[in-house]
Amino acid sequence: MRLAIKEACAARAEGEIPVGAVVVSGGRVVGRGHNLTETLRDVTAHAEMQAITATAIACDAKYPAEDATLYVTLEPCVMCAGAIGWSQLRRIVIGARDPRRGYSVMCSKNPFHPKAEVVWDVLADDCRSLIVDFFKEKR
Amino acid sequence: MRLAIKEACAARAEGEIPVGAVVVSGGRVVGRGHNLTETLRDVTAHAEMQAITATAIACDAKYPAEDATLYVTLEPCVMCAGAIGWSQLRRIVIGARDPRRGYSVMCSKNPFHPKAEVVWDVLADDCRSLIVDFFKEKR
Repeated sequence: MRLAIKEACAARAEGEIPVGAVVVSGGRVVGRGHNLTETLRDVTAHAEMQAITATAIACDAKYPAEDATLYVTLEPCVMCAGAIGWSQLRRIVIGARDPRRGYSVMCSKNPFHPKAEVVWDVLADDCRSLIVDFFKEKR
Repeated sequence: MRLAIKEACAARAEGEIPVGAVVVSGGRVVGRGHNLTETLRDVTAHAEMQAITATAIACDAKYPAEDATLYVTLEPCVMCAGAIGWSQLRRIVIGARDPRRGYSVMCSKNPFHPKAEVVWDVLADDCRSLIVDFFKEKR
């Protein structure tokens, strides 16, 4: 999660809402990404989307390995949750919750792989502070 | 919707599940896309994602114009519904329903812009046949 936070800091440095994501498999980082919606002017360029696509390119495979874990600093939105589901990722580690836009408040059915394990609130305070401080500074 | 079906046929010609999407604004097609998940080995490369990103590039704007309409041959999944929500598209015209993976069976809350209008079942039989025939041929 510390690496995902580092990605979020990279987003912040580019004026983006600070969210970061990392995919780890076999003890190695196989994909990483941070929010780039402003830079790319692309609403789909969330951290998780970048990390999933980066993983597919790095591993030259449509799906990450079965042991792969996604670490993300903010609870995925429905778009990212859907992408995580399609990617068949089996382990998702989440930092801060998103009570407004998080998939858990939007979805009535599990969008992830049926065997996926979800771990909540990992370094949640650090992950949340990044976002809260970003919007404080914006105002 | 006929143009979206044409996009779906382009997907089929590339061995992809035939789904197509088109964004129209000011009477012009400003974005189009078809499913490219196999070709790009990218689970996020759904027709709607391609069309939304293509629209942003073509219009050099993060959000499509307020009058923009998305036509899509298959009910969006949660990933694409989330992307459509982020894009703030105000009108979504859907062909065939997807009772397994469609956002309407997965989401408990509206993932689209609160003022978005959704039109269902446009050329639904044609859109559905494309998919059904594709999987029949695969077997």
